[in-house]
Amino acid sequence: MGESIKGLKRSCMCGQLNESNVGNTVTLMGWVQRRRDLGSLIFVDLRDRTGIVQVVFGEEIDKNAFHKAEAIRSEYVLAVTGNVVLRESPNPNMPTGMIEIKATDLRILSESETPPIYIKEELDAAEQIRLKYRYLDLRRPDMQRRLMVRHRAAKIVRDFMDENGFLEMETPMLTKSTPEGARDYLVPSRNFPGMFYALPQSPQLFKQLLMVSGFDRYFQIVRCFRDEDLRANRQPEFTQIDIEMSFVDVDDVIEMNERLIQRLFKEILNVDVKLPIMRMPYKEAMERYGSDKPDIRFGLELVNLTDVVRNSSFKVFQDAIANNGDVRAINAKGCADFGRKEIDRLGEYVKTYGAKGLAWIAIKEDEIKSPIGKFFSEDEMKAIIDRVNGEVGDLILIVADKPDTVFASLGALRLELGRKLNLIGPENKEFKFLWVTEFPLFEYDEEENRYVAKHHPFTMPMEEDLEFLETEPGKVRAKAYDIVLNGEEIGGGSIRIHDTKIQERMFKALGFTMESAWEKFGFLLEAFKFGPPPHGGLAYGFDRLVMFLTGTENIKDVIAFPKNQNAACPLTNAPNVVDSKQLTELGISTINKE
Amino acid sequence: MGESIKGLKRSCMCGQLNESNVGNTVTLMGWVQRRRDLGSLIFVDLRDRTGIVQVVFGEEIDKNAFHKAEAIRSEYVLAVTGNVVLRESPNPNMPTGMIEIKATDLRILSESETPPIYIKEELDAAEQIRLKYRYLDLRRPDMQRRLMVRHRAAKIVRDFMDENGFLEMETPMLTKSTPEGARDYLVPSRNFPGMFYALPQSPQLFKQLLMVSGFDRYFQIVRCFRDEDLRANRQPEFTQIDIEMSFVDVDDVIEMNERLIQRLFKEILNVDVKLPIMRMPYKEAMERYGSDKPDIRFGLELVNLTDVVRNSSFKVFQDAIANNGDVRAINAKGCADFGRKEIDRLGEYVKTYGAKGLAWIAIKEDEIKSPIGKFFSEDEMKAIIDRVNGEVGDLILIVADKPDTVFASLGALRLELGRKLNLIGPENKEFKFLWVTEFPLFEYDEEENRYVAKHHPFTMPMEEDLEFLETEPGKVRAKAYDIVLNGEEIGGGSIRIHDTKIQERMFKALGFTMESAWEKFGFLLEAFKFGPPPHGGLAYGFDRLVMFLTGTENIKDVIAFPKNQNAACPLTNAPNVVDSKQLTELGISTINKE
Repeated sequence: MGESIKGLKRSCMCGQLNESNVGNTVTLMGWVQRRRDLGSLIFVDLRDRTGIVQVVFGEEIDKNAFHKAEAIRSEYVLAVTGNVVLRESPNPNMPTGMIEIKATDLRILSESETPPIYIKEELDAAEQIRLKYRYLDLRRPDMQRRLMVRHRAAKIVRDFMDENGFLEMETPMLTKSTPEGARDYLVPSRNFPGMFYALPQSPQLFKQLLMVSGFDRYFQIVRCFRDEDLRANRQPEFTQIDIEMSFVDVDDVIEMNERLIQRLFKEILNVDVKLPIMRMPYKEAMERYGSDKPDIRFGLELVNLTDVVRNSSFKVFQDAIANNGDVRAINAKGCADFGRKEIDRLGEYVKTYGAKGLAWIAIKEDEIKSPIGKFFSEDEMKAIIDRVNGEVGDLILIVADKPDTVFASLGALRLELGRKLNLIGPENKEFKFLWVTEFPLFEYDEEENRYVAKHHPFTMPMEEDLEFLETEPGKVRAKAYDIVLNGEEIGGGSIRIHDTKIQERMFKALGFTMESAWEKFGFLLEAFKFGPPPHGGLAYGFDRLVMFLTGTENIKDVIAFPKNQNAACPLTNAPNVVDSKQLTELGISTINKE
Repeated sequence: MGESIKGLKRSCMCGQLNESNVGNTVTLMGWVQRRRDLGSLIFVDLRDRTGIVQVVFGEEIDKNAFHKAEAIRSEYVLAVTGNVVLRESPNPNMPTGMIEIKATDLRILSESETPPIYIKEELDAAEQIRLKYRYLDLRRPDMQRRLMVRHRAAKIVRDFMDENGFLEMETPMLTKSTPEGARDYLVPSRNFPGMFYALPQSPQLFKQLLMVSGFDRYFQIVRCFRDEDLRANRQPEFTQIDIEMSFVDVDDVIEMNERLIQRLFKEILNVDVKLPIMRMPYKEAMERYGSDKPDIRFGLELVNLTDVVRNSSFKVFQDAIANNGDVRAINAKGCADFGRKEIDRLGEYVKTYGAKGLAWIAIKEDEIKSPIGKFFSEDEMKAIIDRVNGEVGDLILIVADKPDTVFASLGALRLELGRKLNLIGPENKEFKFLWVTEFPLFEYDEEENRYVAKHHPFTMPMEEDLEFLETEPGKVRAKAYDIVLNGEEIGGGSIRIHDTKIQERMFKALGFTMESAWEKFGFLLEAFKFGPPPHGGLAYGFDRLVMFLTGTENIKDVIAFPKNQNAACPLTNAPNVVDSKQLTELGISTINKE
């Protein structure tokens, strides 16, 4: 039913027109946003990716076009030729609101049924419907803007990297399963039935090999895969800006990446990121914010009370301290009037992070109110209040437990207070970047009863801590760094080990025999026999970065065709069943699970 | 054993140094290409990705550095500080040959065992070894150059597309299996045991959906997958430049892509591609060159003799013509003195393309020599010779058969003659582009006994042939086009059907019921209910394009980590066996094939 565009050329886009075009004849092509029929005149808002412009059809303007226009419905696709004129009643809310197009010719290129979702900003439709009709959801101007920003961001990254001598190099998608990583997506091999490729969780080993090859500076905007249970803002396939450099130490990687971040936020948001970005060792971040990705847009820092309360008669604190635990507090400034109910809610909140309870001290005008007040001498209470810089009106919230638990619960409590007090949230448009550095090289895996690599087994220890690699692995800090924005990790990386001797000590500390290390990482170890350069790098979660650049909190808003919470695609119905002949070729069969 | 680079900064790259740097102190980092020990002096060629420079260590230059340098071996990684001086004996064969570095400081950053392959241009090592030690193979300057060109080419494409309003948009890798396509790579789903994703053969359906969404101009440099038996220059994963535009017809797509091609060849090779590129309908390409991807760097065109020999007494020709076949010839200019053996070899050659034999007529100075001469009257012989513009010294080679066989065998014979006569080959550095247009919409599948889509089922028929869609499908031409370079298809595409009625007729012609069409392509058909714009596009094989841009005939030379002929990776040993626990989670098991 659609007419052909044969012989017709679009002369410009809808959103580009303004008063300077008055008098021009233009040909526009786009979708009908809406149509109003005023008897002798028909008004159509015509939409393309640049915006909307009003087109008017009238019996006296062009009879043919007018009568054809009577058939027009929402989302029809039109080619309209007409003259740009000043509107009699301008619409100041529309960028093109000063003008309209008097249509002298119309072709209806394509018709539309009534769409199941509205094509408008800030749509409030069920996610399942939005994903099923994704092609309509993507017609919405806010979705279009976000994906245009995504394109622009990728372009800026590529321009910057190219200017700085980085080569974009492609690494395999059909590769080997990652030891020590998350769960892999597997791909059965037809040539080797019973064997499998894995889709990459990251190009980590390949980018290190490219450094061994002497490419010096590599980057790639690359799809990665993790078959993990999906939480909010996790997708089974995601995009990474992957970077690696040779002949560098921590400062070199950080300085380069700061300039990249600065460029990106300037060009997309016109935000000036002041350099250098603040750096904070992991230990300090934990002690001040209870988090390795602190949101530094607000204070409410943690304070250590352990030494102050060490000799108090409060058994909960005494026990915690006796078990190598800490007592730490947050001074919730001005919150002394929180009701009992609210404080109880906060108590329940910290329990979800493992704390056994939340002690509190409210500094009222005329009294110190606290259920635990009786356990402290006047001097002790004064010392607590002094330590947290307590003033009248403040509420001191205290957790005593193992350090991990104290940090986790107070870190979370701090964010909860920040939200409650509107210190963070949609109104706060600040961008506060922070490098968190000097991460522990290992973390202790209680289940496996051994140290595991916090980043990965190729992360370089800090030179000054090398001596503790065998004796006190928990104390060894890594040349690892995360870039944190407003409390979210947007990227992270490390300097890698390029010294075989250190790599061997590292594997030993991880409890590997050299045999098992070779079995798992053989080709990298083999490569490192032949002159690996010092190297290091970083990877950003590109989807997450684009979320910041577009101001959305939903990762599905920055991915054209995302999966739902079950890793399925309601649009295409992937995954689906396949022909059993196909499976036989691959040497696999499905198990009938009952 | 490696020294740290702490406190050291590279000041420039090896290949960048020349006479203008004389007097500078520089710090270089790179690999030892070779080391010559002349007693009191040690010469080291230091290599990085920009080139090689000579470094000289001497007891009188710096004693420490000199003694350290005694330990240096090939492929050690060094940091060298020193002074740039003019060489006493310049080496005009090296870009940096006028100067050398007198080393005042040396750090050995990393050692190397003797590499199993030589790090040099044009290495002649076994492919299996090159792939296993790919990180060393990639140190070779020619491999580095090619991958740098690949980066540059991708950057130019992205710049050009961005300048022209195309948005790079990412499409899913975990998607649905492609009906009517090649064999898919499958990915088992853990959330839906027994179900599978497929890796994309191309983002065809997604790019069409993006047009339905109104993104107007899309492109992507994207990985695609086909689980086909590997021939030379085929890889299981390959990269495509994928392009789609809305509100366009054939000319618009072609004009845009010509400018892209022109830019690419100008910027990379400084080759001027004259626009417009010649266009040739499929039918003409077949009749003149016996190929839908003709190499037009040379002539030797096919000539139709059917009408000339129709009444001859040669039974082979008569039978072919009676069976709706053709008799066609190539005039091999100046080849009349080919020996019997050579002509027999050509006869065997055409047989591999299905021809039953090769007839020939040699026009000698004093005689017409031909085993089939006796079947033709003098007039007939003269007519044949006239038709092919035969002259003394020419050799006329003739095939009679069904048209497909005639074209296939003479098309191949033409290329074989071109190679034999050195009309094409490494010496011929011309780039001859050609658009082949007006492809048949269908081809007849003898096995399935039905018409199948030559491109894909969404390809738009030419308007003037629409009337034959039901009556004579074989006659319908498509709005499809291939871009051919020197006889190789480097890209292809089409205008798509955006009219539901035509799409339904197309499916009918393909023998689908509407039910089966919906089962296979439901989500695209559903999308097309809601105002699809006229649209079309094109996709390039990026690997193949880079092969042309780098002058290599081996696809593995332009991919950093390619697979071998078994789709395996000798470097990582992918694919490999995986834990049976992993398979159980996915609801699959391997079949023990005996």
